[in-house]
Amino acid sequence: MATKPFFRGQLIAIGGNEDKANELVVLKRVIQEVGKAEFNIAIITTASREPEKQAEKYRQAFTTLGASRIEILNIGTRVQANDSSRAKVLENIDLIFLSGGDQLRLTSILGGSNILEVIHNKLETGTLIAGTSAGAAVFSDTMIYEGKSEDGLLKGSVLTTSGFGFVENIVFDTHFMARGRLGRLIQIVTTNPTMMGVGIGEDSGIVLKGDGTVEVIGKGQVIVVDGSDIAHSNIMDIEPGGPIAVENVRIHSLVKGYGYDFKKRRFLTPLPSKE
Amino acid sequence: MATKPFFRGQLIAIGGNEDKANELVVLKRVIQEVGKAEFNIAIITTASREPEKQAEKYRQAFTTLGASRIEILNIGTRVQANDSSRAKVLENIDLIFLSGGDQLRLTSILGGSNILEVIHNKLETGTLIAGTSAGAAVFSDTMIYEGKSEDGLLKGSVLTTSGFGFVENIVFDTHFMARGRLGRLIQIVTTNPTMMGVGIGEDSGIVLKGDGTVEVIGKGQVIVVDGSDIAHSNIMDIEPGGPIAVENVRIHSLVKGYGYDFKKRRFLTPLPSKE
Repeated sequence: MATKPFFRGQLIAIGGNEDKANELVVLKRVIQEVGKAEFNIAIITTASREPEKQAEKYRQAFTTLGASRIEILNIGTRVQANDSSRAKVLENIDLIFLSGGDQLRLTSILGGSNILEVIHNKLETGTLIAGTSAGAAVFSDTMIYEGKSEDGLLKGSVLTTSGFGFVENIVFDTHFMARGRLGRLIQIVTTNPTMMGVGIGEDSGIVLKGDGTVEVIGKGQVIVVDGSDIAHSNIMDIEPGGPIAVENVRIHSLVKGYGYDFKKRRFLTPLPSKE
Repeated sequence: MATKPFFRGQLIAIGGNEDKANELVVLKRVIQEVGKAEFNIAIITTASREPEKQAEKYRQAFTTLGASRIEILNIGTRVQANDSSRAKVLENIDLIFLSGGDQLRLTSILGGSNILEVIHNKLETGTLIAGTSAGAAVFSDTMIYEGKSEDGLLKGSVLTTSGFGFVENIVFDTHFMARGRLGRLIQIVTTNPTMMGVGIGEDSGIVLKGDGTVEVIGKGQVIVVDGSDIAHSNIMDIEPGGPIAVENVRIHSLVKGYGYDFKKRRFLTPLPSKE
């Protein structure tokens, strides 16, 4: 295949609805990946229409987890997204956390902005970026922003646009088992099997590593949808709204400790050394 | 593989919610498969807690489609299921139609009964049996009767018992895309890849043919879940309630005119001669 799925930098994608008040298993792992005793966090609440509420929950959770400084970036307009004083807040930040809501708010407000460029630069220089729900959906270069689960296999029912492109040729979907979204990812990989689909369950996530592998964390599943074996499909022959036929979509279900190698498209069983 | 999935006789499985008042596409095809100008239908409403309502809708639909005689068999107790006068109604019946509701009503009331034996005999001597929703779920030898979609990949969350066994080693699920049930079938084939999963969409169905192939009818999808390539899974290692990891589940989406060969586990594109 010409283009392999890949990603750069340190990233953690969470499927939404992660525990913020009790065991904090997923968020604890996020902090472990920061890898510093003293660390500063910026929380970007742009995806949400109730940003203060969101900010408060994460402020509490990350305070519990020992953050030295927490900055809330509630950027709600493109003017703010291009305001260099806000971008300056990201200096000396060790973790950028994108909270949930509507991914189309994130891309339409932050897309092409000054602050997104700063975020990209931070990612390339080693800052950890974690996102949950909408905040994880934007990681992809092709981003799903709409599409009813039950219509997932009707042509054109899954609406996509460009995401932030932290990862290439991997499309993230979230709240995956809870909302029965497998049809959406099957449609995506049928339209172009170069893309791989990754459906992340609630209170679960994946830690993306520099070598092209991921490790699953949290209590649920991560589903990988691989279209590289697809033989026949009717996708180019049917009208929008028509039901999609497709042969040979490969599915994997991963749980805590399991992994996936996106370069080799290979399922990874847990390492014996893992806790 | 030691045991191939197979089925006997003439069968049509419908995913529920088929049109009963307008175009009647699926029910029209059922009648075509009866293949007679004059034909008698028995409708078994046992699955439903509102059998009269169900009966009335099907009576109207099948009258529209030209049935000579329609018998309603509202069997609600095991005593009735063993009453030979009710079984006699099935003489000279060309189509036995199992309406929807709760498949556990069908199996717990009709299982091991006189009338079920008569139904089996009728199937073996060429009578067409069609079922929708619960009425299709009972076709399987292993029958799903409970299991929330969102918990489909938690071990033990999909409850099964024996169905009527018209087909062997194929597990039918219905209302499939509408209720996001793919996780349920992935769990089933992970527990034993001898079984194949078939998820039938609403207002859609499959016509099962004597040669081990099926043809898809109606407006939606039929999803085939094939576990024969499964490599790793954790199903024997985790406790009930734990999330299932599984490598290499093969999925096909079939639409109207497409088929599947269950003996060869092969996807079939539409025949050029099909309308």
